[in-house]
Amino acid sequence: MPDARIGVVGATGAVGSVTLALLAERGYANVRAFASARSAGGSVKLGARELPVEEATPTVLAAGGLDLALFSVGTSASRELVPHAVRGGAVAVDKSAAYRLEPGVPLVVPEVNGERAHEHEGIVANPNCCTIPLTCVLKPLHDAAGLRRLRVSTYQSVSGAGARRMEALLAEPQSEHDLTMDWSWDGDETDEESKLRSETRKIMELPELPISATTVRVPVLVGHAEAVWAEFEDALSPGQAAELLAAAPSVRVVDVPSPKQAARTDQVLVGRIRPDRAGENGLALFLACDNLMKGAALNAIQIAELLLGGTPGFPESPLLYA
Amino acid sequence: MPDARIGVVGATGAVGSVTLALLAERGYANVRAFASARSAGGSVKLGARELPVEEATPTVLAAGGLDLALFSVGTSASRELVPHAVRGGAVAVDKSAAYRLEPGVPLVVPEVNGERAHEHEGIVANPNCCTIPLTCVLKPLHDAAGLRRLRVSTYQSVSGAGARRMEALLAEPQSEHDLTMDWSWDGDETDEESKLRSETRKIMELPELPISATTVRVPVLVGHAEAVWAEFEDALSPGQAAELLAAAPSVRVVDVPSPKQAARTDQVLVGRIRPDRAGENGLALFLACDNLMKGAALNAIQIAELLLGGTPGFPESPLLYA
Repeated sequence: MPDARIGVVGATGAVGSVTLALLAERGYANVRAFASARSAGGSVKLGARELPVEEATPTVLAAGGLDLALFSVGTSASRELVPHAVRGGAVAVDKSAAYRLEPGVPLVVPEVNGERAHEHEGIVANPNCCTIPLTCVLKPLHDAAGLRRLRVSTYQSVSGAGARRMEALLAEPQSEHDLTMDWSWDGDETDEESKLRSETRKIMELPELPISATTVRVPVLVGHAEAVWAEFEDALSPGQAAELLAAAPSVRVVDVPSPKQAARTDQVLVGRIRPDRAGENGLALFLACDNLMKGAALNAIQIAELLLGGTPGFPESPLLYA
Repeated sequence: MPDARIGVVGATGAVGSVTLALLAERGYANVRAFASARSAGGSVKLGARELPVEEATPTVLAAGGLDLALFSVGTSASRELVPHAVRGGAVAVDKSAAYRLEPGVPLVVPEVNGERAHEHEGIVANPNCCTIPLTCVLKPLHDAAGLRRLRVSTYQSVSGAGARRMEALLAEPQSEHDLTMDWSWDGDETDEESKLRSETRKIMELPELPISATTVRVPVLVGHAEAVWAEFEDALSPGQAAELLAAAPSVRVVDVPSPKQAARTDQVLVGRIRPDRAGENGLALFLACDNLMKGAALNAIQIAELLLGGTPGFPESPLLYA
């Protein structure tokens, strides 16, 4: 497996850097780095090695030589480039929103619906950074009690908006920090809110699941958190839920999860599990996850490992990015 | 009214400073400042004037000479000192949690249940900084459609935890900022969550209202926000709700409220009003409010003005604290 030929497209971005660190840590050596014309020509680190950054053009990607292409670029760049990588013979694992809801494109969280990855026709999509930890937590609860309704409010770190927003936060005086809802709009919702609904429905295979989300960016550098109210068909006590979650892959039950506690770990932290005092058969809980790791780069590599025929590594790995 | 004799107890704290600024701006000149032994002896500003800071002792407060005593101290200090101020002939407006749920103590948001203020027996309690803006927004909606259930997640600034926490945030590297739930625990909830439930029930006079809250501290200096899901007896469209809220005192309807936008204003900003896609007859909305102003000092002064027989000032006032 570590001899698979892997291309990392968007290698100089926030998620691309974490992807390279994770690949190096897992022993992948046959890696090429691609980026836009602006960033091409420089180099990036693959562990101790320097990799040249090639320009990601349709021609180069269609020329072949890659088994897997991991895309961490914007939606429009993915729309332009992914088909060329597929034409060149690679399976593309795309982290953008470009293909997530397309029929024939599996949208995969390995712990939740890993078996779907093999149904691809060249592209596997990696879900939104809030959807991944949410479905990791909901899956075992749904299997036990049947998910009926979902309300989620998010506390999303600025790294979800890319490396430049991280720099902007670091340069801003603390007294200026604010909450924002700076996504595109999809009617009366942010497109992050509608993504969270449509992606959760697709991954959980619950196409009618009622979901209401409020997505908020907070002045935290790395790590997304979510306050969740979930209603079930059957009664599910907080104790039963904690037991199911403690046994779930990639989930760790803690008292009070926080982004800083989750940052640089492989796992989704979940806690504050209690009855929803505003509804029947409901639970309230709080989760936190490193949005660059399990929320993005790590999930995509776990998809890649499914496709390469191995077992994706779910246990916590040592820490990777600076 | 501006010749009322007003004592500000806890005058050197985050809320006490805003209280003095608001009193000066409203023309109150007959003001005395009190603080703990640690802070007594210095001086504070009342507009351009310097006020000596007296030590807040039972003896001094019981000695009389105050019409109103505005308390911005911790719960245990309030329990110790408030009865002495009342014994000395003052009406105490207490911002701590000490008396909020006591029978015979009105818990007042002037826009919501101002008439209750006059039923006091010496003490009027000022609600929690999240409860005040929440009830300002819920009241007109409840009057129109009948509130049935409530779910709230909060985004609370560090100034809610006092001046020292503000200094700590300013001194902390941005990369260390985290979300916290650093309240005391009341069973499986933070005491902030159980306060939000019991105080909202008392103010709205809905003693059985089902409420589930998740309270979270975010690394923002001033301004609390809340993501709210409210279910009603009757259908209420987002347009109808926006119209009701636009006509409500101390509420301003905006597209996307944020703490920074709310900071240093008198009003509760509300927006993102949309159907709750996870329930029937429900609305989702987002609000923001200056937790030191309407969330604390301003609400207490508006209570004081009700008690003094005037009309509390609800229109937006010029800006007050630095």
